[in-house]
Amino acid sequence: MKKLTSLSATIMFVLALLIISSPKTNSQSLSDKQITDYKNVANQFVRKALEDRKGYFLLKELTDIGPRLSGSPNSIKAIHWAEKKMKELGFDKVWLQPVMVPHWERGNIEKAKIVSSKKINNRNLVVRALGGSIATDAKELQGKVISIKSFEELREKQELVKGKIVFYDRPLDQGLYSGGYGGVWNYRVFGADSAAKYGAIGVLLRSITTKYDNNPHTGVVFYADQVKRIPAVSVGYLDSDFLRQALKEEPNLEVNLKLNSKWFEDAPSYNVIGEITGSKYPDEVITVGGHIDSWDLGVGANDDGTGCIQSMEVLDLFKRLNIAPQRTIRCVLFINEENGSRGAEAYGNFADSSIQVTIAAMEADAGSGTPRDFSVDSDSLTIEKIKSWLPILAETGILEVAKGGSGADVGRIKSAKARIGYGPDGQRYFDYHHSDNDQFSIIHPREFELGSAAMATLVFMIDREGL
Amino acid sequence: MKKLTSLSATIMFVLALLIISSPKTNSQSLSDKQITDYKNVANQFVRKALEDRKGYFLLKELTDIGPRLSGSPNSIKAIHWAEKKMKELGFDKVWLQPVMVPHWERGNIEKAKIVSSKKINNRNLVVRALGGSIATDAKELQGKVISIKSFEELREKQELVKGKIVFYDRPLDQGLYSGGYGGVWNYRVFGADSAAKYGAIGVLLRSITTKYDNNPHTGVVFYADQVKRIPAVSVGYLDSDFLRQALKEEPNLEVNLKLNSKWFEDAPSYNVIGEITGSKYPDEVITVGGHIDSWDLGVGANDDGTGCIQSMEVLDLFKRLNIAPQRTIRCVLFINEENGSRGAEAYGNFADSSIQVTIAAMEADAGSGTPRDFSVDSDSLTIEKIKSWLPILAETGILEVAKGGSGADVGRIKSAKARIGYGPDGQRYFDYHHSDNDQFSIIHPREFELGSAAMATLVFMIDREGL
Repeated sequence: MKKLTSLSATIMFVLALLIISSPKTNSQSLSDKQITDYKNVANQFVRKALEDRKGYFLLKELTDIGPRLSGSPNSIKAIHWAEKKMKELGFDKVWLQPVMVPHWERGNIEKAKIVSSKKINNRNLVVRALGGSIATDAKELQGKVISIKSFEELREKQELVKGKIVFYDRPLDQGLYSGGYGGVWNYRVFGADSAAKYGAIGVLLRSITTKYDNNPHTGVVFYADQVKRIPAVSVGYLDSDFLRQALKEEPNLEVNLKLNSKWFEDAPSYNVIGEITGSKYPDEVITVGGHIDSWDLGVGANDDGTGCIQSMEVLDLFKRLNIAPQRTIRCVLFINEENGSRGAEAYGNFADSSIQVTIAAMEADAGSGTPRDFSVDSDSLTIEKIKSWLPILAETGILEVAKGGSGADVGRIKSAKARIGYGPDGQRYFDYHHSDNDQFSIIHPREFELGSAAMATLVFMIDREGL
Repeated sequence: MKKLTSLSATIMFVLALLIISSPKTNSQSLSDKQITDYKNVANQFVRKALEDRKGYFLLKELTDIGPRLSGSPNSIKAIHWAEKKMKELGFDKVWLQPVMVPHWERGNIEKAKIVSSKKINNRNLVVRALGGSIATDAKELQGKVISIKSFEELREKQELVKGKIVFYDRPLDQGLYSGGYGGVWNYRVFGADSAAKYGAIGVLLRSITTKYDNNPHTGVVFYADQVKRIPAVSVGYLDSDFLRQALKEEPNLEVNLKLNSKWFEDAPSYNVIGEITGSKYPDEVITVGGHIDSWDLGVGANDDGTGCIQSMEVLDLFKRLNIAPQRTIRCVLFINEENGSRGAEAYGNFADSSIQVTIAAMEADAGSGTPRDFSVDSDSLTIEKIKSWLPILAETGILEVAKGGSGADVGRIKSAKARIGYGPDGQRYFDYHHSDNDQFSIIHPREFELGSAAMATLVFMIDREGL
């Protein structure tokens, strides 16, 4: 090949840029050069995220506000903090989308103790009201306890349940790679209703956790309109062990329970939305988001302060690297994922009725571990296209692109061509989940920041290659 | 298809077992049924490991002994503990392979302070002797400090080095996914020698770490015979920042250093070896191992108590699940990986000259994170064969089989058909590496136990499918 003149070289460079930045319907054809160039971008995202730890320090600011349950003053503080921060980061548009949310408060009394026992009278149990639980009538509630391991057993023993407190003594199955949450969460959500049908007066739920400690988790409890509402609490894992043993020795012991939790009118709240407007296809939107609300235990660092800040940092990484996206990249911090999904519903309705098209909607709500995979809800050709980018995504720690569930919030954007869930390593996830353990101190800066880089890389690929 | 008679069904079941257990040279042909059966085995390994946490509690016992530097009384205690434990676990053969190892002790004095400064006189710096460093002559050593960022800079400034203490102020590059150890370890190993050539009197090395704390790491320092030996210490990361700033303000400050580390005669020690003898091919050996020695800071929980116990647990998982291996599965706990590799050399010589054949040798020496990959040193057909097992390995968290470096210990088994390195997530690895941070408390039980399950699964596949 002849030596290129300077002009020819310039033309070829411009052509190369056009090639790397032209939208395509089929990406199987990435050249070695393109792959190398894209890998370089991925590595720049990784370097910026890891060196600066900017998202990590933003997460500190957010979690310093405290827990952010929907309807709480803290949640409003966090929303305004995020709005202000997005403006400071220089996003092109920043706005709040109003939405009414449920408003429940835990109150300041949540006590349980073993009574009517010869050996261990007045022994306290560490409990936390499940989210949305009613208070105990007449200040307290007392009754015998029946231990139940499954809904099947509940049905079989329905005659024995009346007037008693049901203790769902069902540990999360630790023997599964994926964690055993799938086999227990429905006892938290539907356990009170199921027990109330047979006349139970209250529910004690063995805390759902992979950590053998005494910090009970919380999470939503569901009441059907036609069933009497009964108070429901989770019991620390260690105290659940204690109660199990106590019931073996004295089946007739009673537990006394006090809760003063309270429901309020729906409260005004907001989704926080910020975007960098696309330079070439402003009406094609790539959404990336987490949920700004958290449970009221811990500070929601892992669930889902992480996803919020990583989503904000995706946009900020584009800015820090001076990359102008061709499509609009929009960060959405959804309110009320934990107990109502009102934010997701509102944003989904907005997006589905907009003149703009959501070509991809990515959600980060699986914790702060090292990147492992993306789960994609889309047609098989689109999934194959994203899979073909694995050599590039692998620079950020992503080793798999799988077909599968994306997430509760982006799931409401029905019109999105692809809904994507970011999948970090989750072995520690249920050590913290919805409990006092979910603190900023459990976030590892490198693992957390790699999440921002992995998401930024996939957003960049979608921006440049289309879907 | 006609309904099978009971006898036909029995014959087919036996045939199926024969098929699943027959050695092959090409595994691309695993049937869906075989894949399902193998996945079931993988899930049983996962369940047993995660539910029992037996390895985790064994690791507690091992690390309770304390750090295990080659030649130390603790290392001998740990060797005898492991030998006894392997016998209690019911391995078919357990023995110690004698090997002489280097013997160095840190001593009880390692002090550094800034002196001859107007502003910050007698300010202590937290330092740890690098492994193998000589003591300071005449009780202490004092000199001006020259800050050096690279060997290149050292050469350029060689005229200025004479009579001074060289401060290698070279932070690990945090901007890389893989961690920046590759760009700095050689300053620890060769920094003293390189500086001594130009007349330096001592070395201060900014500690190699991803954690911004003040617990300096250690690790081997190399002295060539023809160069004068000078004392070398690592300086806590935070104190390195302090020293950097102090040198900017007062380039003529001096540092005073005291070490009373000491070299002794080579000491007798051992590799610990235990095996389950193969039922069908006893002379085909699958080796799995870690290194029993550790540095003398922390307790070597991550490096490499983890690999030792995971290797022992691989054999124990076969026993707990009543799986009799067809080939011999041998656990080797190598002594002296950290500062001499004498154990690896001795075992490699033994294996390479044995009538038994090592068909695979797996090493676990990359920490206790969640499983991600195996790196395989072998011919491409063998690597492809192992890759074809990914759907099975994925049940344990393994998402990649890559060609590449296996490890320092199994690297000495030249005759092995495949040398394999187990690759867990390593984002936290250099938070602990060779420092007081390497404690049992940093081990996450699920992540750790999944390592045992991942290794057991690959060992099982090699046992049943051959290589």
